[in-house]
Amino acid sequence: MVSAVVLLTVERARINQVAETLSGMQGVSEVYSVGGRYDLVAIIRVKDNESLAELITNQMLLVEGIDDSETLIAFRVYSRHDLEKMFSIGM
Amino acid sequence: MVSAVVLLTVERARINQVAETLSGMQGVSEVYSVGGRYDLVAIIRVKDNESLAELITNQMLLVEGIDDSETLIAFRVYSRHDLEKMFSIGM
Amino acid sequence: MVSAVVLLTVERARINQVAETLSGMQGVSEVYSVGGRYDLVAIIRVKDNESLAELITNQMLLVEGIDDSETLIAFRVYSRHDLEKMFSIGM
Amino acid sequence: MVSAVVLLTVERARINQVAETLSGMQGVSEVYSVGGRYDLVAIIRVKDNESLAELITNQMLLVEGIDDSETLIAFRVYSRHDLEKMFSIGM
Amino acid sequence: MVSAVVLLTVERARINQVAETLSGMQGVSEVYSVGGRYDLVAIIRVKDNESLAELITNQMLLVEGIDDSETLIAFRVYSRHDLEKMFSIGM
Amino acid sequence: MVSAVVLLTVERARINQVAETLSGMQGVSEVYSVGGRYDLVAIIRVKDNESLAELITNQMLLVEGIDDSETLIAFRVYSRHDLEKMFSIGM
Amino acid sequence: MVSAVVLLTVERARINQVAETLSGMQGVSEVYSVGGRYDLVAIIRVKDNESLAELITNQMLLVEGIDDSETLIAFRVYSRHDLEKMFSIGM
Amino acid sequence: MVSAVVLLTVERARINQVAETLSGMQGVSEVYSVGGRYDLVAIIRVKDNESLAELITNQMLLVEGIDDSETLIAFRVYSRHDLEKMFSIGM
Amino acid sequence: MVSAVVLLTVERARINQVAETLSGMQGVSEVYSVGGRYDLVAIIRVKDNESLAELITNQMLLVEGIDDSETLIAFRVYSRHDLEKMFSIGM
Amino acid sequence: MVSAVVLLTVERARINQVAETLSGMQGVSEVYSVGGRYDLVAIIRVKDNESLAELITNQMLLVEGIDDSETLIAFRVYSRHDLEKMFSIGM
Repeated sequence: MVSAVVLLTVERARINQVAETLSGMQGVSEVYSVGGRYDLVAIIRVKDNESLAELITNQMLLVEGIDDSETLIAFRVYSRHDLEKMFSIGM
Repeated sequence: MVSAVVLLTVERARINQVAETLSGMQGVSEVYSVGGRYDLVAIIRVKDNESLAELITNQMLLVEGIDDSETLIAFRVYSRHDLEKMFSIGM
Repeated sequence: MVSAVVLLTVERARINQVAETLSGMQGVSEVYSVGGRYDLVAIIRVKDNESLAELITNQMLLVEGIDDSETLIAFRVYSRHDLEKMFSIGM
Repeated sequence: MVSAVVLLTVERARINQVAETLSGMQGVSEVYSVGGRYDLVAIIRVKDNESLAELITNQMLLVEGIDDSETLIAFRVYSRHDLEKMFSIGM
Repeated sequence: MVSAVVLLTVERARINQVAETLSGMQGVSEVYSVGGRYDLVAIIRVKDNESLAELITNQMLLVEGIDDSETLIAFRVYSRHDLEKMFSIGM
Repeated sequence: MVSAVVLLTVERARINQVAETLSGMQGVSEVYSVGGRYDLVAIIRVKDNESLAELITNQMLLVEGIDDSETLIAFRVYSRHDLEKMFSIGM
Repeated sequence: MVSAVVLLTVERARINQVAETLSGMQGVSEVYSVGGRYDLVAIIRVKDNESLAELITNQMLLVEGIDDSETLIAFRVYSRHDLEKMFSIGM
Repeated sequence: MVSAVVLLTVERARINQVAETLSGMQGVSEVYSVGGRYDLVAIIRVKDNESLAELITNQMLLVEGIDDSETLIAFRVYSRHDLEKMFSIGM
Repeated sequence: MVSAVVLLTVERARINQVAETLSGMQGVSEVYSVGGRYDLVAIIRVKDNESLAELITNQMLLVEGIDDSETLIAFRVYSRHDLEKMFSIGM
Repeated sequence: MVSAVVLLTVERARINQVAETLSGMQGVSEVYSVGGRYDLVAIIRVKDNESLAELITNQMLLVEGIDDSETLIAFRVYSRHDLEKMFSIGM
C-alpha cells in the first residue's frame, strides 16, 4: 500500500462540496475539514506509485474550487492497526 | 469521535524513533513519515475534546526530538468508511 | 462550550461592514478590528463541535469581503471568569 | 476599555503552565490553548493604553517559556454583549 | 496623544500620488517613501483611540492604489523631543 | 535631511531598556514600542548619508538585546510640517 | 557541461502536459512530477552558460501553464557517474 | 555617488525586454538576469538621493512587465575599484 | 525505479564535504552545489519505496553538517533518456 | 566573464569588517552595505564557472560573521558599459 497526505486550500464557499467530491473517489480514504492554515486534509491509500500519480494528477487536482495543494507522499506508515487490511475490508 | 492531523518537524536523527513512540500512544491511529516540508504526520482519533487536549499537550508534545508541531483539529470527517467503527474494532 | 478564535483578512473598504455582520451572528461573541497582519479577530463560543462546523463553514466564511481566514480551534480555555455562564446570561 | 489579542508561541512542555500564569494576571480575561500555528491566544481587557503597555511589556512578556508573541491591539470591539459591564461584574 | 506606524504596499505607478493624498490627511504627520519590502511608511499622531480607528479604517485605507497595509499601533513613544507640543504647534 | 525607519525585534525582557537607549542617541528622533510583528520602530533624521551609515552600523545595531532589524531608508518625505526645521529647533 | 535544477509550480490541470513539453526540449535531461511545495523539477544539462540562458528564458519559461519558477544554477556536480558522457551517448 | 541594488520579479515572457529597457536608462549601470527567487537585479549609480527617487519611482517602476520589486539603498560601497571614476568615464 | 529530489541547506564550511559524502552513497546518483535558497540538490534513484525510506532516513539525513532538508518524492519521471538503463549500466 | 550577486545577512557587530574582508578578495568587484532584509550585497565578476565555485565556497562563505547567504548566479548581463574591459583595466 502507498499512502499520501494532501493538504488543500479551497474556495471558502465550496469547502463542503469539494470535501464530498474528494471523499467519494476510489483511493481517498478520508477527508478532514480542519482549522488552521489549510481547509481540507485528504488521506490517500492506493496500491502502488502509479495509482497514486493517476489519482492525484488526473482526478483530485482537477476538482473545481481547489486553490492550492501540497502532497506529502509517505515513506512509511507506523500504526498498531493493520490499515491495509482494515481499508480493503472496509471498501 | 474527535479527529486531528498533527504536522511535525523532528530532529533528523530521531525520525524513526519519534514515529514509533507516537504510534504507540492510545488515540494516535497512524503516523506517516513523509517527504516535503514536514517530517511526520500523525492522525489522532479520540472520543472527545478533553481527550484530545490531554493527548496532545500532556503526551505527544513532550516526546523528545520534536522541533515544531502544528495541530489541525478537524471540524468534520468525510469518508465512505465507518471510521469510528473500524478503529474501535481495530483497537 | 467549544471556543475558537478566527483571524480574518478583509477587503479594506469593508472592514466595518464585515465586523458588524459577523458580530450579529449567533455564536460569535465578539469581533475585534485590530492592528497588525490581520484585520479582524472573531471569538466564537458555541455549545459543541457540530455547531462550530455549522457556524464557520456555512455562515461566517460565506460573508462577502473576507479575503482570507484562519480558524484556531481551542483545546481548552483558562479564565478566572465563568465565561460559559456569563455569555449565556449575556445572550 | 482597551482590548488586545496576543498570539503566543510557547515551549511545548510549558503550555499549560504558561496559560495558567497568564490567565491569573489582572487584565487578562481569558487564555485559549489552540490548534494551528500558535499555541496560546490571550484576550486582554484593561482600562486604558497605559495599563495595556504596563501589562504586556512589564508582566506578560516576562513569563518564562514564551518563545514568540504578536500583540494585536484592537481599534474597536463589535459585540451584542456589554463586555465592559460583564467583565467588571465578573471580576 | 495616540501614535501608529502604518507600513504600506502600493501600486507601483501610484506611489507619489498615494503619498501625497495620505500626507494631506488630518492626523497623518508624515509619509516616507522607502526602499525595502514596503513602499510607504505613514506616521499617525491623533488625540485618542477613537480618532485612530476613524482615520485608519474610514479614511486612509479607502485611498485607491493601496495593495496591502499593516498598522503598528504604539504602546508608548520614547523621545527627547516634546512631540505632542511640536506637532500641535506645527499644525 | 536624510530619514530612515528602522523596524526592530528585541529580546522581550529588554524592550523598555533598548527603546530608552536608542531614543537617547543623537539622530534618533523617536522610538515607538508597537503591537504586531515588530517590537520597536525607530525614526531617524540625520543630515546626510554618511551620518546615517555611521549612526546605524556603528551605534544603533551594537545595542545589546536587538535580535533582528530592518532599515527602511527614505527616498522622500511628504509632510505638511516643516520637519527639518521642527527637529533642529527641538534639538 | 553546465547544469541547473528548475523548480516549477504549474496550473494543476496542466501538470502532465507541461512536463511532457519540457522533457521534449533539447537540453532538458529529465522532468520529475513531485510531491511537496513544487509540482515539477526539471534537470538541465547544456554545454555552456549561453545555452543555459537561451534554453531557460527563450524556451522553457514561455511554456503556457507555468505559474512560478526558480532556477538553481549549479556551481559543481558531484557524481560517481560520468554524466557528461552518459547523456551525450544517450542523446 | 548614491548606489542601490534593485531586486525584480518580472513576467516570464518579458524578462529580456525589461532587462534591455532598464539597462538603457541613465543611472542604471547594469542589469543581471539571475537564477533563484528573483529574475533581474539592477545596479543603480546616481549622483544624489533626489536622482535616486526620480529614477526609481518615476522611471524604473513604471516599466511594464515588472511584477514585484525591492530596492536596497546602499549606505556605503566597499571596493578596490574607483567606481565613481570608472562609471563616469564609462558613460 | 523510484526517484526523489532532495533540497538541502548545509553549514557553509562543509558544503564540499557533505556533497562528496552524499554522492558516494549507493542510490544517490548526483549532487549539485547550487546558487539560490538551497546549497545542495541530491538526485536519488533507487529500486523501490522501501530502499528510498532506508537511504533517506537511515543514511543521508544522518550526515553531519546538514541544517535543513526537504525531500521531493517523484510521482513520475519524464525523459527522452532511458534513465533506468543508463544508471544501472553506469553503476 | 561570469557574474553573480550575493545577498548576505551578517552579525550586526561585524558588518563593516565582513564588508572589508569580502571587498578585498580577488573576484569580488564591490560590496554594498544596504537597508532592507539583507545587510550586504556583493558583486562578483570572475573569468569562468570554476573560479566562481572556488571563490564562493572556498573563500567567501568561510568568512566569520556571515549568518546567511543567497547566491544569484547571472545568466546574462545587460549594460551600456563594457564591464569586462572596465574591471580588467581597473584591476
